[in-house]
Amino acid sequence: MKNISELFGIQYPIIQGGMIWCSGWELASAVSNAGGLGIIGSGSMTPDVLKEHIAKCKAATKKPFGVNIPLIFGHSAEFIEIVKTEKIPVVITSAGNPAKYTEYLQAEGIKVIHVVANLKGALKCESVGVDAIVAEGFEAGGHNGKEETTTMVLIPMVVDAVKIPVIAAGGIFDGRSMHAAFSLGAAGVQIGSRFAISKESSAHDLFKEEVVKSGDGGTQLSLKKLIAVRLLKNEFYNMVKEKEDAGASPEELLELLGSGRAKTGMFDGDLENGELEIGQVAARIEKIEPASEIINSIIAEFNEVQIDKLSKA
Amino acid sequence: MKNISELFGIQYPIIQGGMIWCSGWELASAVSNAGGLGIIGSGSMTPDVLKEHIAKCKAATKKPFGVNIPLIFGHSAEFIEIVKTEKIPVVITSAGNPAKYTEYLQAEGIKVIHVVANLKGALKCESVGVDAIVAEGFEAGGHNGKEETTTMVLIPMVVDAVKIPVIAAGGIFDGRSMHAAFSLGAAGVQIGSRFAISKESSAHDLFKEEVVKSGDGGTQLSLKKLIAVRLLKNEFYNMVKEKEDAGASPEELLELLGSGRAKTGMFDGDLENGELEIGQVAARIEKIEPASEIINSIIAEFNEVQIDKLSKA
Repeated sequence: MKNISELFGIQYPIIQGGMIWCSGWELASAVSNAGGLGIIGSGSMTPDVLKEHIAKCKAATKKPFGVNIPLIFGHSAEFIEIVKTEKIPVVITSAGNPAKYTEYLQAEGIKVIHVVANLKGALKCESVGVDAIVAEGFEAGGHNGKEETTTMVLIPMVVDAVKIPVIAAGGIFDGRSMHAAFSLGAAGVQIGSRFAISKESSAHDLFKEEVVKSGDGGTQLSLKKLIAVRLLKNEFYNMVKEKEDAGASPEELLELLGSGRAKTGMFDGDLENGELEIGQVAARIEKIEPASEIINSIIAEFNEVQIDKLSKA
Repeated sequence: MKNISELFGIQYPIIQGGMIWCSGWELASAVSNAGGLGIIGSGSMTPDVLKEHIAKCKAATKKPFGVNIPLIFGHSAEFIEIVKTEKIPVVITSAGNPAKYTEYLQAEGIKVIHVVANLKGALKCESVGVDAIVAEGFEAGGHNGKEETTTMVLIPMVVDAVKIPVIAAGGIFDGRSMHAAFSLGAAGVQIGSRFAISKESSAHDLFKEEVVKSGDGGTQLSLKKLIAVRLLKNEFYNMVKEKEDAGASPEELLELLGSGRAKTGMFDGDLENGELEIGQVAARIEKIEPASEIINSIIAEFNEVQIDKLSKA
């Protein structure tokens, strides 16, 4: 399968994940300028804030960039109108029905990608005509699927089932994991967590530093009785785990969660009470780097991978 | 890193996972005869049964094979003496302290591999001098680690941390996933589930057929308050989940589990009441094949993978 560079008019088949509280115009434009596809994550924005980020991103890069729109949020219909009016070249929809806006956006020449975490979702996406799928494994940060299928298992299963390009997400950190995703049949990768901890991410420095300090087993897919979310283990997580271990109901968990926990942690830097969404690659993140250095090092590592054919020894 | 073929004197760097109720002499000798490293799984055997399987395996293949010994079981000390006396070329220890028998076995010219599911375990293995590590991701079947680190994240992390060969396990199903593991820096792969459902596996046909029928999301890492185990979702799993959701204590779960559940399901074929241990690749298993066909198809697929270097488009 050809990689996605040509489809989206980008240099390298790397998409930056749209992430609440992390990926505004600064990160998106930095990624696009470095040859990837930068994505503004609208999930934590109001319509006016999204418009402002789009304007600033257009001013900061001449290259294509995209907007991620989680369809479960209240503003999603307005966001769709904004990206249509602004003629954003690529829109990534997630957390909702891909049938809802795909044709509507494609009619304006916009490429539509939808994010799935399972085989059923991938088949649905293909049937409604999306241009590409992001298939996201269990190891990814933030909200995730109840099947818990990992990238290693999910990608070849989806690749075998659909004809449209499959972009691998979850656990993609460096040139080796990108190469692994291509081995599995992916036509591109979406990288979230590593960019969440980049210099241009709008996340709070305390959150970034906490991720750098974390290690193997530092994250957990949690709150499965609500919508499962992978987060860094902190005080808030410990409170959730205690309640879950004791058999708390969804209502009790919702009460504990309250609202605004992700902003509290990732944007305001309250490491105790906040919900610190990040993927398992947190364990591999060892510094806060500019987005361009992340992309350049990934491409260099990818091109260094050398695997000999196997023959009878 | 050189692959493990030379280290273990085998044709292809594929190790068959040692699995309770599945991998006796018939499977182990079939894998070794096909160029991989067949493994007798001693975890469900008594000492006399293990001796019988070793004798039959020696009669059925002239090629190297190994024995897997979970160190937590009561017979493990006797098993160590048996593999030493029988001069088994490769012993894989798991579920216990790798310091206990590594030097003792190596003094007899036996190569020792230890299975880990996290970075800490890998570092411990290297420090006590094991010859190689099997690093097993969250997607693997059977017992697994509490970190829940997936193969995509675990392998490069371990490869960067140790100098000894790392064998990837968990989610390895075909030539593409084997190629992906090599991209991540693995020097070999351990494949369990696909061989558990092979013709030569001693598992019950009803269990094999149930796995063939299962799909995406068909397994779950369960019983985390005891020792986490990945199993097929069935009636037994539903009973466990109901209790877990209600906050059951480890004692209550242990009472529900009872003893002999894995035999009941995997060997006796009681699909309702048995514990059906299998990995996430269950979703990708579509037929019951001879071990030799599995190995031949994996090698052919591996050699077909072609990944172009990336350049500025």
